[in-house]
Parts: sequence; C-alpha cells; structure tokens
Amino acid sequence: MKNYTHINDIDNINSWIEEAREIKANPLANFELGKNKTLGLLFFNSSLRTRLSTQKAALNLGMNPIVMNVSGDAWGIEFGDGTVMNGNTAEHIKEAAAVVSQYCDVIAVRAFPTLTDKVKDESEQVLNSFAKFASVPIVNMESATSHPLQGLTDAITIAENTTKKKPKVVLSWAPHIKALPHAVGNSFVQAMQKMDVDFVIANPEGYNLNSQITKDTPIYHNQKEAFKNADFIYAKNWSSYEDYGKVLKTDLDWMITNKKIGNAKFMHCLPVRRNVVVADEVLDGENSLVIEQANNRTYAAQLVLKKILEDL
Amino acid sequence: MKNYTHINDIDNINSWIEEAREIKANPLANFELGKNKTLGLLFFNSSLRTRLSTQKAALNLGMNPIVMNVSGDAWGIEFGDGTVMNGNTAEHIKEAAAVVSQYCDVIAVRAFPTLTDKVKDESEQVLNSFAKFASVPIVNMESATSHPLQGLTDAITIAENTTKKKPKVVLSWAPHIKALPHAVGNSFVQAMQKMDVDFVIANPEGYNLNSQITKDTPIYHNQKEAFKNADFIYAKNWSSYEDYGKVLKTDLDWMITNKKIGNAKFMHCLPVRRNVVVADEVLDGENSLVIEQANNRTYAAQLVLKKILEDL
Amino acid sequence: MKNYTHINDIDNINSWIEEAREIKANPLANFELGKNKTLGLLFFNSSLRTRLSTQKAALNLGMNPIVMNVSGDAWGIEFGDGTVMNGNTAEHIKEAAAVVSQYCDVIAVRAFPTLTDKVKDESEQVLNSFAKFASVPIVNMESATSHPLQGLTDAITIAENTTKKKPKVVLSWAPHIKALPHAVGNSFVQAMQKMDVDFVIANPEGYNLNSQITKDTPIYHNQKEAFKNADFIYAKNWSSYEDYGKVLKTDLDWMITNKKIGNAKFMHCLPVRRNVVVADEVLDGENSLVIEQANNRTYAAQLVLKKILEDL
Repeated sequence: MKNYTHINDIDNINSWIEEAREIKANPLANFELGKNKTLGLLFFNSSLRTRLSTQKAALNLGMNPIVMNVSGDAWGIEFGDGTVMNGNTAEHIKEAAAVVSQYCDVIAVRAFPTLTDKVKDESEQVLNSFAKFASVPIVNMESATSHPLQGLTDAITIAENTTKKKPKVVLSWAPHIKALPHAVGNSFVQAMQKMDVDFVIANPEGYNLNSQITKDTPIYHNQKEAFKNADFIYAKNWSSYEDYGKVLKTDLDWMITNKKIGNAKFMHCLPVRRNVVVADEVLDGENSLVIEQANNRTYAAQLVLKKILEDL
Repeated sequence: MKNYTHINDIDNINSWIEEAREIKANPLANFELGKNKTLGLLFFNSSLRTRLSTQKAALNLGMNPIVMNVSGDAWGIEFGDGTVMNGNTAEHIKEAAAVVSQYCDVIAVRAFPTLTDKVKDESEQVLNSFAKFASVPIVNMESATSHPLQGLTDAITIAENTTKKKPKVVLSWAPHIKALPHAVGNSFVQAMQKMDVDFVIANPEGYNLNSQITKDTPIYHNQKEAFKNADFIYAKNWSSYEDYGKVLKTDLDWMITNKKIGNAKFMHCLPVRRNVVVADEVLDGENSLVIEQANNRTYAAQLVLKKILEDL
Repeated sequence: MKNYTHINDIDNINSWIEEAREIKANPLANFELGKNKTLGLLFFNSSLRTRLSTQKAALNLGMNPIVMNVSGDAWGIEFGDGTVMNGNTAEHIKEAAAVVSQYCDVIAVRAFPTLTDKVKDESEQVLNSFAKFASVPIVNMESATSHPLQGLTDAITIAENTTKKKPKVVLSWAPHIKALPHAVGNSFVQAMQKMDVDFVIANPEGYNLNSQITKDTPIYHNQKEAFKNADFIYAKNWSSYEDYGKVLKTDLDWMITNKKIGNAKFMHCLPVRRNVVVADEVLDGENSLVIEQANNRTYAAQLVLKKILEDL
C-alpha cells in the first residue's frame, strides 16, 4: 500500500480487521519493521486521540515519530497553482511536501474543512496536495471529508464486540452547538457498507450526508424507528450538508439516552459533549464502547503503518 | 507506588534520597525498566525545567516520552459533574483521562491554580480528576497546591550539600511583582517536616502559608532573626494565602542578598527574577545551589518513575 | 569542536564536504555515537526544515532530540546584565542556559534578528549568551546574522552538483514583500569565500550586505551582467543593511526566471515565495536544486553533531 487516505484504500475489510486484532494481541511483534524510519505527523488542526494513538502506533513499530503543529511551528502554506505569493502564505505545498519527504519516511496529515466552501472542501486540497507532491506515503489523520483511521477503528470495534453474525448498526446524528465536519460520518458509512452488517442512518431532515456516499443505505428521519432492534448505535454530530456547514437545530430531542438505546452498544469517536450529544448515563453505563474504541485507534493506525512499511 | 501526587506519597524520605543519589551516580542503570513504556506529559501551563527534566528522566529509564500542550494541541477540558456541555469545553475529563490511559503507561500532569478561587484550587480538580478517571499512574508536575517533584529534589539537594547532621534550613518568602502559587512553598515545607533538619519559615505578616501545612513549623516575620545560623536559605515568592492570591507588598526589603545569607547555601526552584527575588551577587556567588538543584530534578523524576514502573 | 555558531567554525571546508558526503552515503554508520545523548532544540522562532532535518540528523546518530518552542512552551527570557527583572521576562539567560545544559548534551538554538536594532542584532545576544552561559556545546540553527548550517548545506550541494573544477556561483538578491534577515546571505557569502569557486554577488543599490562580510567579493548592481556564464545562481531576499531592515523595493524586475538563469543550476534555502522571488518555471524545472538542497540540511546537521559528539 502506498497512501492511506480513504476507506476505499482498504482492499478487504475482514482481513484487515483480523490483522488489526492480531496486532492488538501482540503489539510489539513488528518492532523491527519501522527501525530508523521516521513518521512525520503534521497537524493543521487540534488533536488528542489521533496525536497520541498514531505516535503510539509508530513507537510500537519501532519508528521515530516527529510531530509538527504546522501553523504554530512553521508558516502559512500556499496551495494555489501559479499564485503570486505576495500575501500571507510563505511556502508553497510543492516545496513543503517535497521537503518533508526528505526527512520523513511516511507523512501523516490532519487538515479540517472550512465548512463554508463546499467545493474547496470536497477538492481535499491539503490532503491531495500532499499526496501529489510528497515522494513518500501519506496517511490521512482526518481530512476535509474523511477520517479513515477512525472508520477502520470503528469496524474493528464492532467486529470485536458483536455477538451476532450480522448485527444491526445505526449511525445516528446527535445535537451539538457548533458546526462540525462530515468526515467521521462519511468514513463510518463507507466502512459499514464494506462490512456484513445491517446498516441504517438516522438523522433529522436537512441533515442527510452526501448522497454519493450514503448511496442506497436506508436513511430514517425518525430516530426511534431507526433504533429498533439495533445492536450498535454510533452517535455523531455533523452540520448540514445540503445547507452546507449550517447548524439547523440544536435542541436535545435527538440526544442519545439509555431509554433510546436499550441493550444496544454505544459508540462515539470522541471528543463528545456530555448531555448534549449523549446523556451521562449512557457514557457511564456498561453498554458504552467509547474508551475501547479510542484504544483501537492505536491498532488501526499500527495496521496502516505496518502495511505501508511493508511496501516501502 | 501507584500515583505520585503529593509529598505524602514518600514513605521514607531518607531511603528515597539514598536511592535518588544512586540513580544520579549511575543514571542508565535501569535503562531496560521502561522499555516500550510511554510517558504522557500533559501541560496545561508553561514549563521549562519540568518539561525537560521529566523527559530526560523517562529517556534514562528507556521510556518514550510524548508531550502535549493541552490547550494549544487539543481542546478545552470539562471537569464539572453532570454538566450540559454547551459552552467552551469540548471534552470531559472522564473521557480525556480514560483515553490518554489507553496510549500512555504513566501520565504526568501540570495544572496551575486560578489564585482567585481558593476552594476550587484546594479541591485540586485537574490533578484529582486525572487520578480518579485515569487507569494508569499519575505524576504531579505541579498542581494548584503542591509540587512534589520539586520538594523531593530540594530534599535530595540539601542531603547532598549538608556538612552537618542536622542543618538549619530556612524557607524565606521573597518579593515578586506577580501573584504566584503556593505549590513550591507547600511541598518544600512538607518535605522539610519529614527530614531531620532544624526548619523555620520567614515571611512578612499576611503571607503565612496554609496553617494546615505549616503546622507547628516556627514562622518568623523578622527575616534577619530567622536567618541566624542558617545553613540553607531557600527563597521563594508566593501570593497571600489569607487574602487569597493577592500581592500585598512588592518592595525589595525582603530580597535575598549576600549580606543576609552570610555563609548559608542559597536555593531556589527557578525561574527566578534577578534583583527582585534575589540579588545577582547571590546567584552568581559560590553559595548558590540553584543549578545543581535544577540538575537534581532529573533524578527526583527518575526515582518516581522508577518506583512507578517497578509496580506496574 | 565545541560550538558550531558560525561558518568560521569550519576549519577545512573541503574535508567537511567530503565527510558530509560520506555521511549521506551511509547515514546510520555512526548510530552508536549519540546513544543516550540528548539534543535540545530551542526555537525562539518558526522553523520547518531546520526543525525536521536537525531532529532527523540527531536520530541518525542515535541521539534523543527534545524540542522546545521557547515562547509558547516556557516564558520570556531576560538577557540584560544586572537587570532588575520586574518586567515581562521571568527567567534570566544565565539560569536558562545553565539549566538546559543539565538535561541536554548539546543545545541547538534559533533566534532571529529584530531588524530594527542593528547594534543589538549584531551583538548576537541570544546565541552568544547561550554560548557563554551553557556548559555544553551550542549549535546555531539561525541567529540574527548567520545561518551556518544552511551555508554548509549550500557548499555541500554545490560540490555535489558541479561539473567544473571552479564553477561560477552568483548570490542574487530577489524581491519579497516583507523585511527578511541577512543571515542566509551572510553565511552563503562566507561559505563561498572558503571554497574554490568564482563567486560574485548581485543586488540592487542600497542592498549591499555588510561590507565586513562581503570583503572583496565583487558586487554587481546589474543582475544580467552578474549572471553571465553562471553555473549556480542562489537567490535570496534580504532587507537593506545600510538602511537597516527596510524594504526599499518590491517590484519584480529582480525575480529569477528561466530566461535569466539559462543553463545555471538554481538554489534557494526555502521557504520561497513563488512568482515573487522566483518564477514557477524555475522551481518546477530541471535546473532547480532546492529539494536536494533541503535534503542536504540533514547531512550538514549530522556532520556538525558528529564532530561535536566526537569531542564530548
């Protein structure tokens, strides 16, 4: 594998899940694989889980992680083609990506969307520019429209925790006061579409995700109906896709509660706003998988880095 | 040992000092102990010595340190119980601490006091929340009311430099233009109370530390009287405890000078404002121990991490 | 070698270049040399290449790099002698340098000039204070007036790419909208003066570098004339030295184009503003050495660290 930028880079999700679980059972088994190899982690945005779990994954493979907060540590990056750079940006992505490739064997990048410019966000300018101009493999640590390390993590977590051959999985929109990206929702949808699960989405009207991603996955605007007989309920807020980046409702009737989930397992990628997205009782209850899900971030990242290192 | 959050976690200060001095004499003796173990250093506030010495201590034990500036690198953490998180905080400590515990084998935390809300500061919300919700050991890298890595360092430094069986040690308040925490003063008092020293405190009226900490340690409001026959003079500013967080005086009559200290050794935790807290002549003179004291930060941290690793 | 703070610390540039090329051919040959040694990288200013390449160089030598953004991670440093520190600075360089020396075996420092106070900039206060008060070797990662890791890199790159015994090398000023330092220009001049090259400088009137540095190197105010028969053209903007720190012209007539450079190889230290300093066609063309030049930053830093480690 060269880059891991999208759920579609997973050729066979079941074998990937199996391999991730082997890694989890024996995290240091490939400690020699990454020896003297450097992973550059470039953050254009904040990060806690991704920052720590991807470093941990690299360390488990014997790699040296080097972290850079691009905006704080360096300078503004220009992405335009042919731009006369007499404004605020001081370095072009062509040089930045090529130069970082001289020092790092793999580059991982986080760059969030604007949520104001749909065309720009869907062009995945930052991620795709790194993929284009870097001479080393690129890992997506959450881009404008996808978060494939999270999607892979979620698939692993469901496989680990299911008691059925074909569980029912529901992705439910949940309320939030700020406009959030679609990346986690998109990658979860795409991961579930690759798995042998009964998968539906629940969201209020006006909150449908991009139909080119949801495809023929059933979408319910009635949360209660969607949750019937669910085995896994994955909550996540996102802003409107149609009315791009807008927050159409913030009232709490879509908040996840114990009464709503019944015996289903609860999942969320974190960070999560308590008593807005989900009630304390759910997060503090025994059906919550969120901490184990966060733990699996390490093994998803480690699987991806392992596959990249094997093909270097 | 599980956590190291307070001087009271030291069961026998003399044996700890002895062991720290053995580590200092041979810092790489336990290089295998921390192999493939990760130390997460979480900074809610600035740090130079603690940041570098704790990383160095981890490296000497073969550990992998991962540093995070919580506010800059991630997002606002919520500590309230049952809060509806529709404000500025985006992640609850319950998740944050549990999640970081998935990636780190030990978590070290720095979080300063508000100095405006005494009840909140004394509740040690940040430190205690990590201790409560993390599933791995916690090390205090200076909390609202204590700095036990510094206190242990100071005990080691006095033991190394004393020529007497029972030296006289004075903790002296010194002037400063800003309101500073009580943490270093508190932990020094508590460390000295455990040692076989003749220990007194000198501070202006209105500057007594918390009496539940100073207990029966003599407090002088006359600096000259307190300094008589002193072997070690430890200077430190703190804001008023009674009139909580206030700066009652900034004039320089309590500044430490060569004339005042005579032949006593001079100590300070650093950073120190020259010619405000202490005159150049003292810091640049041969009785100053401040650089060796800073050096001992590594061995205090290394001893604490060693004890934690041994009990993992 | 103790410190590497200036091009003059290179005793024999030809043997240094030869050794750097050996390191490049076999970067891990000295992996045991830096084992359990710590390199502290202190940034008072932004950095991308220097940050990553110096860490990479340290890792190739088996060292542990520890990075600190001084302003963001710690506090204001005082450099004045005898200052009463009742202002914004909280720690004196005397303590800061001595303390960091307790935790690091080598200290690398980046501190840019003010470009408003020539006397202060030329005193190299930050760099020289570290060199004076640290007890371990100091590496200059770009100071107020020199960038000797870059100058060494540039010498290596010219040696690698020349097809002639004595190539013609031109350093050309190029336009920029902001006031930039003289450090890269100065160190390049000094490196070229040590090499067996035909070296000239081209810059507009009013933009002569410090004559104590340029010495008898020919300076052309006519770019076209200077570029005749050039084998290497090194572009770099700097602000006026005479009218200190001023931007006297920003129009693009000095911008580097394909027509101007002909068959000469193009060099720049990066970051570079496209279509201001240099046209896209040059950077994207086959005569550009800028990426290989950035790559050589690792080996220049590694050579310097190797020499320092060998003398520890």
